[in-house]
Amino acid sequence: MIRIGIYGYGNLAIGVEKAVLKRNDFEVVCVFTRRDPSTVKSVCGNKVVSVNDVLDYKDKIDVLILCGGSAKDLPVQSPELVKNFNIIDSFDTHKTIIDHFNNVNKNALETNHVGMISIGWDPGLFSLERTLFESIIPDGKTYTFWGKGVSQGHSDAIRRIPHVLDARQYTIPVSETQEDVRNGNLKTFTARQMHKRDCYVVVDDPKNEAEVEKAIKEMPNYFSDYDTTVHFISQKELNEKHATLPHGGLVIRNGNTSQGTNHVMEFKLTLDSNPEFTASVMLAYAKVIYKMYNRGEFGAKTILDVKLSDLSDHTYEELLTKLI
Amino acid sequence: MIRIGIYGYGNLAIGVEKAVLKRNDFEVVCVFTRRDPSTVKSVCGNKVVSVNDVLDYKDKIDVLILCGGSAKDLPVQSPELVKNFNIIDSFDTHKTIIDHFNNVNKNALETNHVGMISIGWDPGLFSLERTLFESIIPDGKTYTFWGKGVSQGHSDAIRRIPHVLDARQYTIPVSETQEDVRNGNLKTFTARQMHKRDCYVVVDDPKNEAEVEKAIKEMPNYFSDYDTTVHFISQKELNEKHATLPHGGLVIRNGNTSQGTNHVMEFKLTLDSNPEFTASVMLAYAKVIYKMYNRGEFGAKTILDVKLSDLSDHTYEELLTKLI
Repeated sequence: MIRIGIYGYGNLAIGVEKAVLKRNDFEVVCVFTRRDPSTVKSVCGNKVVSVNDVLDYKDKIDVLILCGGSAKDLPVQSPELVKNFNIIDSFDTHKTIIDHFNNVNKNALETNHVGMISIGWDPGLFSLERTLFESIIPDGKTYTFWGKGVSQGHSDAIRRIPHVLDARQYTIPVSETQEDVRNGNLKTFTARQMHKRDCYVVVDDPKNEAEVEKAIKEMPNYFSDYDTTVHFISQKELNEKHATLPHGGLVIRNGNTSQGTNHVMEFKLTLDSNPEFTASVMLAYAKVIYKMYNRGEFGAKTILDVKLSDLSDHTYEELLTKLI
Repeated sequence: MIRIGIYGYGNLAIGVEKAVLKRNDFEVVCVFTRRDPSTVKSVCGNKVVSVNDVLDYKDKIDVLILCGGSAKDLPVQSPELVKNFNIIDSFDTHKTIIDHFNNVNKNALETNHVGMISIGWDPGLFSLERTLFESIIPDGKTYTFWGKGVSQGHSDAIRRIPHVLDARQYTIPVSETQEDVRNGNLKTFTARQMHKRDCYVVVDDPKNEAEVEKAIKEMPNYFSDYDTTVHFISQKELNEKHATLPHGGLVIRNGNTSQGTNHVMEFKLTLDSNPEFTASVMLAYAKVIYKMYNRGEFGAKTILDVKLSDLSDHTYEELLTKLI
């Protein structure tokens, strides 16, 4: 049994708890929270402990699964916690991954721990596929599409507009552009050609709808570069029809091995729940961390450092007979 | 520069020669043939040498790329050649892969070489994706579809029927069944529900068409379990419209992380040329063999033993900034 701790307790953490129920080889030692533990109840009945007591668990946990956010939590938590634990996180700020890696790597190497970062689906599985695709067919071009799925950042941006009570924003890939790539049109597409945005918004008074719609559609960076549709609905409808967090995406590469001989590679995810799927990916890779630690392979790691035979529950003989 | 030899000279070997032209880090030392070398001309102008002289090249080649068939060539060649070379093959008889692995492994370990087997797209990339998918979402079911693509074995079977002069058989996946899997219908589908077969046949005389069509459709194992369509065409049309070897396929898994929360993972290939794509996969992994050999990681290997950072041409820093 691999003994795990869950650090931070939100949607992702609940996903980890559920993922453990689907496997036979993990045991949740406890959940760590920054809140008063007496006010937090684990959905799956796990023990809840204050983050202040985390060092008491130094020798009781094989892998600590970090479920905090990339903006403020993980840049601090991952390098700090890896001094005493093997850790895994889903750090997803692409442009600072290299700094995050270096910070975790330094402390992991100094204390002989394994710190695996940026594990989920993007970064994560999509990173793996992008690297695979490019390595297989060097002469070609890779595109990443996201959605259909809820963007927390864009939903939050709408909620900050005056008169908006609540909002949910779906990012939707443009299927015509995906078809263009399949057909070999490998140009640089604009943001508008890659994705569109669909917004479900609750306002305080119908008379403010026009003003809110304008504010959304003209918002720079978030919406002005996209074809955006705004639907005004009631809070009741938002709660009923838009409560889950579906997501997904497509990595696609079109390339050639000789003049006129083209090949298309595609990796597609359609997810009912972004946090549950991300949690399931993290738990799968937590097993690899455990193996790496026992082999003395310390330091920061990414999904690109993992061989599939380490990820699988099968013996190598089973892999040779069943999966290869 | 990684110095490669190409062992056997057919479609796959020509694909390897073309793949080398797309990369900067490989050099073809020579092509080995069982025929009289003076009768064989390399499409890309490489030196052609008799297989009888292969041992003269023992220290001149870093990786020998085996381009023979799985039925008779590779079971003998791979274990024999790995005694003197690092080798890679595309052995694809799924049910005897474990024996092939053990035969190569024994000789590779005794002589300190690396022998990577079953590299291509199935087995190969599809094996990688099947293993990945199952590891990420344990509670689910994986399906593999092949096509649309030419099946050499089925084309040969038609050619053995009396009155048939030539034939080309396409395996076509049933898209409705793929849609069933996406929608969560995870039953065990019959052969007929998974694939259909489309045959283009040249006969000696139109009066024999009915007899040939019956012989095809009733052929056990090959056709009787499938919805099969037979088109009679001229040799000229066959040569003009069915000369290339397109192929492809889909690995799809539908699973759940909790009651009612489903996720679909898909990996799809659409290939203009089966041999050129397979050759390009083999060359990409030849680079990994070179690294493994220099690190002293001897023995038989499969695609599941490879970490993506070894496959890529990028430095680790580039991977962290560009692909993760």
